[in-house]
Amino acid sequence: MNDELTLYVAAFVDELVKAGVRHAVISPGSRSTPLAIGMAEHREMNIHLHIDERSAAFFALGMAKAERKPVALLCTSGTAVANYFPAIVEAYYSRVPLIVLTADRPHELRDVGAPQAIDQFHIFGKYAKWFVEMALPESSDEMLRYARVMAARAAAVATLAPQGPVHLNFPLREPLVPVITEQTWEQVKAEAPSCIEVTIGQKTLADEQFRQLYEQLSHIEKGWIVCGDLDKPGFAEAVTGLAETFGYPILADPLSQLRSGIHAKDWIIECYDAILKDETIAQHLLPEVVIRFGAMPVSKPLSLTLKRDPSIMQIVVDGGDGWREPTYMASRMVYCEEMEFCKRLVQYGSERGVSEWAKLWRDVNELARKVLLRAKHEDSLFEGKVFIELAELLPEQSLLFVGNSMPIRDADTFFMVNDKQIRVLANRGANGIDGVVSSALGASAVAEPLVLVIGDLSFYHDLNGLLAAKLHQLNATIIVMNNNGGGIFSFLPQANYRTHFETLFGTPTNLRFEHVVRMYDGQYYEATTWNEFREYVQQSVHNKGLHVIELCTSREENVGKHRFLWNIVSQEIAQFLAKRGK
Amino acid sequence: MNDELTLYVAAFVDELVKAGVRHAVISPGSRSTPLAIGMAEHREMNIHLHIDERSAAFFALGMAKAERKPVALLCTSGTAVANYFPAIVEAYYSRVPLIVLTADRPHELRDVGAPQAIDQFHIFGKYAKWFVEMALPESSDEMLRYARVMAARAAAVATLAPQGPVHLNFPLREPLVPVITEQTWEQVKAEAPSCIEVTIGQKTLADEQFRQLYEQLSHIEKGWIVCGDLDKPGFAEAVTGLAETFGYPILADPLSQLRSGIHAKDWIIECYDAILKDETIAQHLLPEVVIRFGAMPVSKPLSLTLKRDPSIMQIVVDGGDGWREPTYMASRMVYCEEMEFCKRLVQYGSERGVSEWAKLWRDVNELARKVLLRAKHEDSLFEGKVFIELAELLPEQSLLFVGNSMPIRDADTFFMVNDKQIRVLANRGANGIDGVVSSALGASAVAEPLVLVIGDLSFYHDLNGLLAAKLHQLNATIIVMNNNGGGIFSFLPQANYRTHFETLFGTPTNLRFEHVVRMYDGQYYEATTWNEFREYVQQSVHNKGLHVIELCTSREENVGKHRFLWNIVSQEIAQFLAKRGK
Repeated sequence: MNDELTLYVAAFVDELVKAGVRHAVISPGSRSTPLAIGMAEHREMNIHLHIDERSAAFFALGMAKAERKPVALLCTSGTAVANYFPAIVEAYYSRVPLIVLTADRPHELRDVGAPQAIDQFHIFGKYAKWFVEMALPESSDEMLRYARVMAARAAAVATLAPQGPVHLNFPLREPLVPVITEQTWEQVKAEAPSCIEVTIGQKTLADEQFRQLYEQLSHIEKGWIVCGDLDKPGFAEAVTGLAETFGYPILADPLSQLRSGIHAKDWIIECYDAILKDETIAQHLLPEVVIRFGAMPVSKPLSLTLKRDPSIMQIVVDGGDGWREPTYMASRMVYCEEMEFCKRLVQYGSERGVSEWAKLWRDVNELARKVLLRAKHEDSLFEGKVFIELAELLPEQSLLFVGNSMPIRDADTFFMVNDKQIRVLANRGANGIDGVVSSALGASAVAEPLVLVIGDLSFYHDLNGLLAAKLHQLNATIIVMNNNGGGIFSFLPQANYRTHFETLFGTPTNLRFEHVVRMYDGQYYEATTWNEFREYVQQSVHNKGLHVIELCTSREENVGKHRFLWNIVSQEIAQFLAKRGK
Repeated sequence: MNDELTLYVAAFVDELVKAGVRHAVISPGSRSTPLAIGMAEHREMNIHLHIDERSAAFFALGMAKAERKPVALLCTSGTAVANYFPAIVEAYYSRVPLIVLTADRPHELRDVGAPQAIDQFHIFGKYAKWFVEMALPESSDEMLRYARVMAARAAAVATLAPQGPVHLNFPLREPLVPVITEQTWEQVKAEAPSCIEVTIGQKTLADEQFRQLYEQLSHIEKGWIVCGDLDKPGFAEAVTGLAETFGYPILADPLSQLRSGIHAKDWIIECYDAILKDETIAQHLLPEVVIRFGAMPVSKPLSLTLKRDPSIMQIVVDGGDGWREPTYMASRMVYCEEMEFCKRLVQYGSERGVSEWAKLWRDVNELARKVLLRAKHEDSLFEGKVFIELAELLPEQSLLFVGNSMPIRDADTFFMVNDKQIRVLANRGANGIDGVVSSALGASAVAEPLVLVIGDLSFYHDLNGLLAAKLHQLNATIIVMNNNGGGIFSFLPQANYRTHFETLFGTPTNLRFEHVVRMYDGQYYEATTWNEFREYVQQSVHNKGLHVIELCTSREENVGKHRFLWNIVSQEIAQFLAKRGK
């Protein structure tokens, strides 16, 4: 009864589970039947169906991010595979482990015009860390062991730093329906037991290298620690230890996971974007050394500041073997696991305490924060205020997912340091506005409560993602900042080009999302006041199901209010520095 | 004022227009600003905005299909590009000319973690017929000429057989806003006039090769001409001429464009799928020779028949240099433009007239058609009946777009020969259920009236595509066959696997599309009877705007009724053959 297929698939799936893969996102298809049934029949594998493969892949990405573990993806042959591509690109750049399993026609049905047969070899190009054309199903001892080892290796390669997607392509012949019963699992465990365990070490430096680096830094008073997107449990404690040792303030991107949490916040500077907007002010606050962790932060003023001055010694620490250094000003690349780097470096001396330099940064940060928090008293639906409100409204242990384009910039400006345990995630590998709904919902399947803040174009782009909430009864709150189009362009030079501005850049869609939210059985709210907003958020995060809260805002007003606040920040800091200089 | 950029972009766009590219589908973005403005400012270029790049690319594909001309696509850097991939794959396999223009970060912002920068080199792999990394904008005479030649060449390469997508990647530096005025066009026409004209010849055989082939065929009485997906004006007349010369019936797939039109229909056989389902019957009706044009037809019984008997001489004619021969039974591949092949071959002899063989095929086809048309009297919402109704309801010059999975199979079975001028299109390159709404709407932008028949999963997959109808006031009728899930699996062996059948294969979504149709300002109708269906279709095709007609059908009933009719066809033909054999 189709034994070759059954045992081969069972061995593969069983080993995936052994390797710690407990979630698979599956899209329906015929060719993928063997693996779909294999995963559905395995007791320890949780399967999540999703019709649209593009959304499915982002759903898996969000889940893998939230879980910090590889998640499997499965689809049939043809353009289904190509629909995975945007999420694969994002996973590659944001270092998220995915195990992509694609069914394929067998060799004799390839490149001969057979239906739904496309060339899937290396279809994701460099974006798959590892591509394997799997052998046709066989059940010899050797090939069952092969199936197991490939599953274990897929999980290992996806997990090795830098984490990322791997792609296994399965040629499958008819008949496609395996006969998997309880006995199958026992049989496969007996005949082809799990055989390999994978242990992954960490990249570190030699004692001497750490000592030299410590010596060098110990003579420099003015330093910054800059932390971009980095989500490793324990990093907050490690990097604040580093800050205390050298007396360097930490410029912390919202995705550094340093603005929230139970670690000490004394060293965290969150308003550097607003502070550094004014070039003259930035000149007064320049460091001599920068130690940078994680991806390049969202802040453009920070990038420009680092780019302007070649005399700043910039040390980029990357545990993932990358070259995330768009300023071309780095003087040193250090390939070392980030926590290891922090913990080892502090062992060579004692804490330096709060210097004048550190105090100066704390003062200007406090000043900037006070100004920005004035937005709290704004009655109109100013987009930036959402993050000020959320810092208060979000329950402990929340996951805050932030959309690209404007929301992540507003989070950068307005999501201030707080003592809650809030994880902040975003798709910052390629910064796309695509797949954000699905990524957030994927995260919500393994981490609750989840709140997503997203713009209207990005929400529209992945409306299909909402189906997962309906199919899998997910609990999530989505806040849509609807400024009817591409808000970010009002901040860019394109805004001065009037002729076709609305057609090419503003791109208003005039969509009323209430309809589509209803279709997916979600609760829809339009918040027209901040009181309503607060009420709806509280109601949503404490109740089951999908909740969508829409705020209709104005692109023009929005850019004006941002600029107004940023100007005050610059003015007040300039005054402060002038006084201090006297 | 940014002259280098302005002139370079203007020269490129102007030459695209000169090369016959009159439509560009643009998605909003910052990096793509120069080209977007260049295209928007050119009087002879029609621009179509679409937010979701996946839908945008399918929209361009549909438009290029309907126009039979290359259409340009433009998006910004990052995952936007990756979203084009499914449509690029489809365009490659279905031989549709697309000119894909992607904006990219300049060299110094690549692979260094700069935002929205991904590696776009050869990102579509083999699916782009031609990839070019364009030079940075310069306005020397030489580089303006370069820009012009690249545009002309892109259109040429996309158009050369086999037609397909080409990809030009533009590195662009800030400032990104060109200053294009009426003077710009005059200046660019004066300083860098259009310089190259492209003439494309056709592949043909030598006289001697045609003569030999004619000789060979003239001795064979039992032949089929098999026509799959092929959409060339004039082919119908050419191939029916061939049929008359040799007395071979034409087995015509719905996408062969042979079932409708003003050409002679005497030779067209449209019920071969139902006829050949019974292997014993097929044995009685086997040809000695098959001349095959276009893609492999949809019909599985036809493929199986061709595959079973190696003694059938199968000649595959392909004007596009492909190898569309999944049966492995072809004895001859002929690389020659299809119409040329037909027209030249008939010159060597006179018409053979209607032989016994041809008459036999006409008789069984008539018989099968009569049985299948009994579905016309079906009161319940049987899916197959839709195409019987449409053959009557569709106005002259309609474009009928058919979704994949079940609709194309039902069109194959139930869309009978008629004398209207109806073009039938579908995405049969990779047979995906993705992007079908957008492909149809793209076609509707250049060809009306358009009617799309699509299943619920496929409709859901590309709901985003509906935005184009709203943004661009398109006129289109969409008929959604809503059987709440994947109807095709009920016809496959998976149907016998009960445990997780609905979860993995049936995949009901329980979506009520009325909501989403409203969001896109469409008219929604649910047809619960055939009278209503007829009324709604007539209303829709004669009125402006987007119209969606939903038929809620049953997967189980559907498979039963199909099988019932097919069985009668087999029985009646078996009786007919038995009588005839006496």
